Amino acid sequence: MEQTRLEKQVQFILEVDKLKEIFRQTVCTQSRRAENDAEHSWHICMAVVVLAEHANEPGMDVLRVLKMLLIHDLVEIDAGDTFAYDTAGMAGQHDRESVAADRIFGILPEDQTREFRDLWDEFEEKKTLESRFANAIDRFQPCLLNTSTEGSAWKRHKVTEDRVIARNAHIALGSAAVWEETLKRIKRTVAEHHLEPGPAPSGPAKGP
Amino acid sequence: MEQTRLEKQVQFILEVDKLKEIFRQTVCTQSRRAENDAEHSWHICMAVVVLAEHANEPGMDVLRVLKMLLIHDLVEIDAGDTFAYDTAGMAGQHDRESVAADRIFGILPEDQTREFRDLWDEFEEKKTLESRFANAIDRFQPCLLNTSTEGSAWKRHKVTEDRVIARNAHIALGSAAVWEETLKRIKRTVAEHHLEPGPAPSGPAKGP
Repeated sequence: MEQTRLEKQVQFILEVDKLKEIFRQTVCTQSRRAENDAEHSWHICMAVVVLAEHANEPGMDVLRVLKMLLIHDLVEIDAGDTFAYDTAGMAGQHDRESVAADRIFGILPEDQTREFRDLWDEFEEKKTLESRFANAIDRFQPCLLNTSTEGSAWKRHKVTEDRVIARNAHIALGSAAVWEETLKRIKRTVAEHHLEPGPAPSGPAKGP
Repeated sequence: MEQTRLEKQVQFILEVDKLKEIFRQTVCTQSRRAENDAEHSWHICMAVVVLAEHANEPGMDVLRVLKMLLIHDLVEIDAGDTFAYDTAGMAGQHDRESVAADRIFGILPEDQTREFRDLWDEFEEKKTLESRFANAIDRFQPCLLNTSTEGSAWKRHKVTEDRVIARNAHIALGSAAVWEETLKRIKRTVAEHHLEPGPAPSGPAKGP
């Protein structure tokens, strides 16, 4: 029997319940257990509502930012979470996630499949005001958690300050103010010895 | 030293991380562990984006619905979760939550404290189109999870069909279509013997 439009939508809502089982490297500030993608997605949406005024340009469509962030990690139900500093894991990541997007968004009625795919593509391409801000907050939140838990995931994976800065500098493309705040917190975490300073830039050795 | 506007906002975002530790009676469909309020909040926002077209009236402001739902459970950080069928626990619930709202929203800059408090009050009062739909989805989602996990929380707490229907019928005030779907799922759960039918209506005993 053909599913009704509402039945397809409900099937999708049930399917994405699996996002609650996709665990990340970042830990929650209280219990210090691993955060999952559903919690992360809620937390960044919350942060968007609070921080929207700090977007680099005026006129941002906050609803579109929220829609992007509500769905941005659904592909990880099939493709798994890739740690932001796992350069090996990143090879082929977009292709794996693209297949996942086809399957998961494909559960919806056709017009919504298209709408969600467009939102996900927009998020991945980081070209619009909305997607740049969405990406900024998606990176700001794990930095906030790491700098509030003695650099937990960074320490565990021996990530150094220079890599943290390189990986997160694009926050500034969405919000210069949020990047400045992030950088301040990164520097403080280094000063507190919870994040290793990076190797000194290579160059000719000084000396006699 | 006086906090800047951005510092207050960041402090709020950190504070609400605690929502991830407030556990509910409903379980996740995969691991069958208790769901927490952050996951629930994400899941209902996701459901709003998918189901908005089923609101009883046209012209709903979806962004306002999402803002309401992103913050609606923050008061439980201080007041704890009250199970929907715990009538004793509900005594004084709104007063406890109101004190919590003052503290938690009060971390924000003044204009945002007011904005969030207004959104929370609107959600609680269930008078506007947006708040009725928000409340509908907030009740639909645990029904969806319970009817997808052999009536887990209902069974554990010996809640009967009549109480489930009485507690959730206001879904129809936000969306007749979503309530119809919910009722179908409740009936199916009864038919599958995972939800006890309620006691027969009392009245004069039949007999000779």
